[in-house]
Amino acid sequence: MVKAKNEHLSIAEAWELLYRTFNGRIEGSSVEVSPDDGLWHVLADDVQAERNVPHYPVSAVDGYALKSDATSNASPATPVILKPHEYSWVNTGGALPLGTDAVAMIEDTSLKGDGDLYVYRALTLGSNVRSVGEDVAKGDVIAYEKDQVMPSLCALFVACGVRRIKVRRRPKSIYIPTGDEIVSPEDLTPSQELPPGKVVDSNSALLRGLFDGWGMSLDIHSLLPDDKEIIREAIRNAAGQYDLVLVGAGSAKGEKDYTAPAIAEEGKLLLHWLRMRPGRPVIVGEVNGKPVVGLPGFSMSTMAVAWTIVYPILCLLSGMDIPREEILRRAIGAGEVVNVGLLLPHSSPQGVEEWLRLKGVQIGEARYVWPLKSGASSISSMAEADAFALLPAEATEYLKGEPISAYFVLPVPWEKRALFQGSDDPAFRRLVRYVRHEGADLAIRNVGSLGGIAALSRGEAHVAACHLLDPATGRYNDSYIDALKPHDQKWIRKVIFLRSQGFILKEGNPKGIKGVKDLARKDVRIINRQAGAGTRVLLDYLLQESGISPSQVQGYNVQTNTHIDAAARVEWGLADVAVGVKAVADVLGLDFIPITWEPYELVIPEEHVGHPGVQALLSAIENPLWRKEVEELGGYRWPE
Amino acid sequence: MVKAKNEHLSIAEAWELLYRTFNGRIEGSSVEVSPDDGLWHVLADDVQAERNVPHYPVSAVDGYALKSDATSNASPATPVILKPHEYSWVNTGGALPLGTDAVAMIEDTSLKGDGDLYVYRALTLGSNVRSVGEDVAKGDVIAYEKDQVMPSLCALFVACGVRRIKVRRRPKSIYIPTGDEIVSPEDLTPSQELPPGKVVDSNSALLRGLFDGWGMSLDIHSLLPDDKEIIREAIRNAAGQYDLVLVGAGSAKGEKDYTAPAIAEEGKLLLHWLRMRPGRPVIVGEVNGKPVVGLPGFSMSTMAVAWTIVYPILCLLSGMDIPREEILRRAIGAGEVVNVGLLLPHSSPQGVEEWLRLKGVQIGEARYVWPLKSGASSISSMAEADAFALLPAEATEYLKGEPISAYFVLPVPWEKRALFQGSDDPAFRRLVRYVRHEGADLAIRNVGSLGGIAALSRGEAHVAACHLLDPATGRYNDSYIDALKPHDQKWIRKVIFLRSQGFILKEGNPKGIKGVKDLARKDVRIINRQAGAGTRVLLDYLLQESGISPSQVQGYNVQTNTHIDAAARVEWGLADVAVGVKAVADVLGLDFIPITWEPYELVIPEEHVGHPGVQALLSAIENPLWRKEVEELGGYRWPE
Repeated sequence: MVKAKNEHLSIAEAWELLYRTFNGRIEGSSVEVSPDDGLWHVLADDVQAERNVPHYPVSAVDGYALKSDATSNASPATPVILKPHEYSWVNTGGALPLGTDAVAMIEDTSLKGDGDLYVYRALTLGSNVRSVGEDVAKGDVIAYEKDQVMPSLCALFVACGVRRIKVRRRPKSIYIPTGDEIVSPEDLTPSQELPPGKVVDSNSALLRGLFDGWGMSLDIHSLLPDDKEIIREAIRNAAGQYDLVLVGAGSAKGEKDYTAPAIAEEGKLLLHWLRMRPGRPVIVGEVNGKPVVGLPGFSMSTMAVAWTIVYPILCLLSGMDIPREEILRRAIGAGEVVNVGLLLPHSSPQGVEEWLRLKGVQIGEARYVWPLKSGASSISSMAEADAFALLPAEATEYLKGEPISAYFVLPVPWEKRALFQGSDDPAFRRLVRYVRHEGADLAIRNVGSLGGIAALSRGEAHVAACHLLDPATGRYNDSYIDALKPHDQKWIRKVIFLRSQGFILKEGNPKGIKGVKDLARKDVRIINRQAGAGTRVLLDYLLQESGISPSQVQGYNVQTNTHIDAAARVEWGLADVAVGVKAVADVLGLDFIPITWEPYELVIPEEHVGHPGVQALLSAIENPLWRKEVEELGGYRWPE
Repeated sequence: MVKAKNEHLSIAEAWELLYRTFNGRIEGSSVEVSPDDGLWHVLADDVQAERNVPHYPVSAVDGYALKSDATSNASPATPVILKPHEYSWVNTGGALPLGTDAVAMIEDTSLKGDGDLYVYRALTLGSNVRSVGEDVAKGDVIAYEKDQVMPSLCALFVACGVRRIKVRRRPKSIYIPTGDEIVSPEDLTPSQELPPGKVVDSNSALLRGLFDGWGMSLDIHSLLPDDKEIIREAIRNAAGQYDLVLVGAGSAKGEKDYTAPAIAEEGKLLLHWLRMRPGRPVIVGEVNGKPVVGLPGFSMSTMAVAWTIVYPILCLLSGMDIPREEILRRAIGAGEVVNVGLLLPHSSPQGVEEWLRLKGVQIGEARYVWPLKSGASSISSMAEADAFALLPAEATEYLKGEPISAYFVLPVPWEKRALFQGSDDPAFRRLVRYVRHEGADLAIRNVGSLGGIAALSRGEAHVAACHLLDPATGRYNDSYIDALKPHDQKWIRKVIFLRSQGFILKEGNPKGIKGVKDLARKDVRIINRQAGAGTRVLLDYLLQESGISPSQVQGYNVQTNTHIDAAARVEWGLADVAVGVKAVADVLGLDFIPITWEPYELVIPEEHVGHPGVQALLSAIENPLWRKEVEELGGYRWPE
């Protein structure tokens, strides 16, 4: 394994290294362009005004141009009377006729039928006149080297007669995706299934989007196999034509990770590994004097490295001198960086900076964020996040309510978003759209039935849903809510649908499973759900009813957190039965034996009933369009 | 004059009206595009995953895939030994071979020479495996109507096999510049002088840049004359093809302001005048169901209306549901919105919201902003601003230090920027670039010599420069500094150059002026500088030396604030003589009679000498490149 000179750096240490190595690297290469074409570029030279602004004496009002001397004794009582040849009308922006030096405003004059102008106010030289060069004098330096050409500066150049400006050339970048297991989305016909072991290249789309957001362009190289010589040649060629080369995946130390050796053989390795998570496997090298960055394969890792390494390099190459505290904000494309309290406690690993994906909610008067799924491999949580935070390497245990500094990328409808915690359900998830049609928003956090009402009791949600069977009574939810609801609160309950729970079985039911009794068979293996899940409570009730002890059931102790994962394990052959909803069996094309209709019940603390998001939710569940969607899903029934 | 139904609204009232009128106006028109092409668009429909992610059981590590059951008794002391057919190597991301259900990490195993694998740790089903649908289940709603397609969402679509998404079509906009006095910059050949009374169209460049920053496109119509029928026809045609029509200038009530009547005749006027400054003359109308906005002519007014009216309309048309507090931030393209203290007191007009153009500085530990030139007509101050603030209609008098909420558009090098206040000088201004080469920054505020040392004494600047002659002693600066310097401070002084002050005269010196004595002539008229300007003090000294009383001098009481404006009035024929520096006479091609070499002296409170910006300034004045520039300007001499 080749070794880089610098390994396991912190982000700050990496930035020092990047600054020392690449600052001003393409400084020499400036181009001359028109102000329009120079928009957003960084100036490579000072710019001087080519003309005065204004370049002639300009009337600042609509009125009568005249010689101010003539009005020196004018007053409302003793107007000065001017003959037609002594004044002329000028519009705002119009040139003062030669010999005039002031403009009388309409309200200070009256024009008589015979053409005489009565002036009721004494004017001094230059009254209501913008003089030559008042805004900008010809020859003035109007912009300095290193200024970025913003739209207003562009307008100033045009106004000052500047036709050509010298700007830093913007870096040309290329991304080279690699990996035997990667398939380009374009190479997959619509009807073609993605074979197992193959992964579609989504990082090209991600990087293209990030570059676009930064106002930078990115070329995408054709997909390369895991072949060191091919990758090496591609890096060599790219470093000849581009200012920045990105290489996808292969940045770790697996047997097929060729980015590091390829860079080392073509140039030099500067850095390997960051003390950051996700995004630890990153490589920075130099080939032909050009920075080459090796990116990790997972999307969230790629994005984290794009923010912390790629964007800072682009700034250095394009001459953008941005203070460090501002670099990450711009890289992330965030608006405000806000201190917000954590809705839930969080453990962060010591010794590495950790990226959190966050979603925001306001409960009562307080605003919170909660962390979404944290795995580097989760693309969904990265796409769902309103905000991101980079936790420092030192801190480890964050308490509930502890403020963290969050970079918001999406506007949060703080006042209108209701937070749902509770049982996962495919039909329920489709309500979000109808809630939005009502002008509100709904955020969903799947924590299971018991988790939902526990969250309500801790004041961490506006609404929950549960389907918890009490094996002792055979009734749903009552005993659980009684146990968890604070005594001083009133919780409103509403069953929104009944859903068919049953056995999810391999297609064709090869083990011939017919009912609960079959779960005790030695050749039948189940996959269970986590403690607190309504579905697990249902299974326990069914087993108890049939007099089967959990120890008789193969796989009883193997558990998973969602309907879909349980069903997928059945599909995958690791279990013969899962308990779950019909909709999920349908998605995976599995068999389904209905067991019971269970009520899916909303629970809303009375104090939140008036919340706009909750109101919209209550209205959305009556929406016939949603009801139609649910009926099409199948496995649902409306309450009587 | 046609009247709109709503006149003189506040911004909030205007937004209510816009929301009521245009929200979802092009809602129906959605288009189906690829995820890549949908970047930044707003979804017109929910999006469901077309495949599970992952779609096969995936190894989350590099290691050995095996059956977890076989390892149930493994420990470091009692490893389980697997034969080659009982395990297989998998890379991270690789598919688990059929029949295996867990992956042992390399560090928990040892591979023997005979191919036996020793496993030192018991694995449970699914260890180090990402199961099917773990991140996203097929059929899951992965994005909702009204979500904006960010790069990460785009990547998620690709990963989930989504090939087409329904998005809101982005609005097509056109800008129609109008005005007899306007010249398109393309119509001016490089050698052509802009005739008096003509103004170059810089608003098209400004608007194009603003739209580009918003990620929106804007077409520019050819320039139209002030002709109501032509403008009316252009609006009618544009409203047929575009979703938003902007009309440049003509939004006030001047005799050639045709936007309002043209809109009224083609459709209806919704709004005229905003209680905002700059940007009061604005029109919003509706033609063919499309919003038509009449913009004022001045650039800063145009920008203010673009921020407050045009961008909100674009959001409504493209279905972007952005909270109000966020709209202005995005419109302005600002990063953080920060509360910063005013460096100087400010009077804001009552009853209108006022836009301030601001520049930021840190003095000691405190961060401040100060307002730049406030006229609607100043393009330079709009381009120079780091930040903008919208002052509420109620507040009027702001004290020094009073915090205002500022939208920062440019990153401020807070720790490295020195603030200079003092005497205006063209050579001094060229130092900024060399200060930046030293990695620091210099902001210049021209307040005259006396203003500069007064600012130092109030702690409002890091450095000043002055050239104040004491008529009593004939010495420069000493007595003024003695009078203003706080007793407990030490101020460092350094003459950086001597500059030639003299009489600026019309080309060819038609009045035959030779010296100070000529200023007492009845046919000679001067233009004076403001009280406190070093140049005015010099004139007073010269008059006193020659025994001329100010009352004998024509024009003594007419004053202006800068060298260039004084010189421009001579060029314009309103004065025969101005006192000023040679460099300015050269710029306007005027005659110059040198009177004296005056020292231009830097003054730096000792506490600021170590400031990085001041250090860079002290180093820049020794820079031979700057010295060469100054020598080429002419009229400067280095101190002995």
